[in-house]
Amino acid sequence: MTGETHNRMSVPAGAIQILPVDGLPEVRSGDPLLQMIGDAIESSIGGIVAGDVVAVTHKVVSKAEGGLIDLRTIEPSPMANRFAKEWAKDARQVEVVLRHSKRIIRMVRGLIIAETRHGFICANAGVDASNVSEDIVCILPEDPDASAEAVREGLVRRFFPDHEGESSPIGVIVTDSFGRPWRNGIVNVAIGVAGIAPLSDYRGQYDPSGYEMRASILAVADELASAAELVMHKLAARPVAVIRGYVPQTDNRSGTGLELIMPEDRNLFI
Amino acid sequence: MTGETHNRMSVPAGAIQILPVDGLPEVRSGDPLLQMIGDAIESSIGGIVAGDVVAVTHKVVSKAEGGLIDLRTIEPSPMANRFAKEWAKDARQVEVVLRHSKRIIRMVRGLIIAETRHGFICANAGVDASNVSEDIVCILPEDPDASAEAVREGLVRRFFPDHEGESSPIGVIVTDSFGRPWRNGIVNVAIGVAGIAPLSDYRGQYDPSGYEMRASILAVADELASAAELVMHKLAARPVAVIRGYVPQTDNRSGTGLELIMPEDRNLFI
Repeated sequence: MTGETHNRMSVPAGAIQILPVDGLPEVRSGDPLLQMIGDAIESSIGGIVAGDVVAVTHKVVSKAEGGLIDLRTIEPSPMANRFAKEWAKDARQVEVVLRHSKRIIRMVRGLIIAETRHGFICANAGVDASNVSEDIVCILPEDPDASAEAVREGLVRRFFPDHEGESSPIGVIVTDSFGRPWRNGIVNVAIGVAGIAPLSDYRGQYDPSGYEMRASILAVADELASAAELVMHKLAARPVAVIRGYVPQTDNRSGTGLELIMPEDRNLFI
Repeated sequence: MTGETHNRMSVPAGAIQILPVDGLPEVRSGDPLLQMIGDAIESSIGGIVAGDVVAVTHKVVSKAEGGLIDLRTIEPSPMANRFAKEWAKDARQVEVVLRHSKRIIRMVRGLIIAETRHGFICANAGVDASNVSEDIVCILPEDPDASAEAVREGLVRRFFPDHEGESSPIGVIVTDSFGRPWRNGIVNVAIGVAGIAPLSDYRGQYDPSGYEMRASILAVADELASAAELVMHKLAARPVAVIRGYVPQTDNRSGTGLELIMPEDRNLFI
């Protein structure tokens, strides 16, 4: 199932590979994304194997789902106009951000940190340049978990036609790059998840020295998203990567991207 | 230079490998950490190659540097006593957290979010269970960048004895697991960096569609730390991993972990 190899080195036991997937054409609204991702995986790395986690940037998902907004159709509100004027922003884009926000967390120095309809807190409510044209912006997928599940189902049907049973042979994450309040730079995180547990909960387990693990819930789906970004990187315009050899250390019951959102009652930074 | 292989699959072009490094013995104060890490890398994966990034959890660095504190020697302050009593915490541990904080950001429901002397904002100012004994806690390294640089220098001396010139053949990151304000679960981040650029700045560059990248500074050292965690995972007690095949996409001038701290004037969430 592996693709062409250009490297004599083999993979040591326990290693994880982050495989770049090339050859995905520019995605347009209504395109058959499942088939395009499957084709790119097949031609680029020869297919997928059980245990693989497929990472897909939200931008291609949004584009396929028609999540592009033409700013020429947007009438900015008075607040969008005032904020845009003060900070030399595009009022139409500010308006799109406001329309896709559930609430505004901060609105300072031209920055808008907002909670999206889904509950994610991020810059500009996830509204982003589309790379299609200056007048077109890209919004987050309507339901990133459903998008991840659709990709997962499609890939299982194609690469594991005989698969039966409840547990998924592969995982899929839909990713976006988020800033962090106290740390410089953005990192890739998972906004949609299917087929894997997004959190790895070590509480109650014991480490090799016999000490019980406390406060140890790892956001593995975010770590997988960050790992994938290392080969997706911006200039390569590579929206898909496959992580091979990841072995979940705790219960891997399939979960959702919403589990990665801090519950309201534990959110200290609103 | 590769170690034993247990897997027939080779590595496709452009792939990154995350290699677990086994065999590091329990580290004690004053231990020759450089040599121990070098030995573990050699026996576990056969050595390192140019371009490798070595990730080391801060806990073994702190232990080697004597960064363990015996709670039996700590006299809690009145505030530490009150806070500990209210939230059923160990007042001596609260006192250690306060002593290692530059300022407290939040102190609620038994949680302390604090800024460390270095400038990191994290739970308990980075003070952590040591896994040595219930009475011993582990603090962050005094200077994580210096610790990373010492490991880098030692590994270059050992594995690249003929290396000359300014640019480093390898990178080293010292890692810790931090929570995030709006996201559930902790993720591995880089607190010390040597030999690589912690941030990848795409601003002013153009993507394949000809669009200029904006607001695109990626915290690649944090993404590398998160990738490493996927093989280090808690129960394996594996404090070292090597990331092979990472290709920086922007200027890779060697930087520090301090560059990953959001500057005060851009910090919206104090």
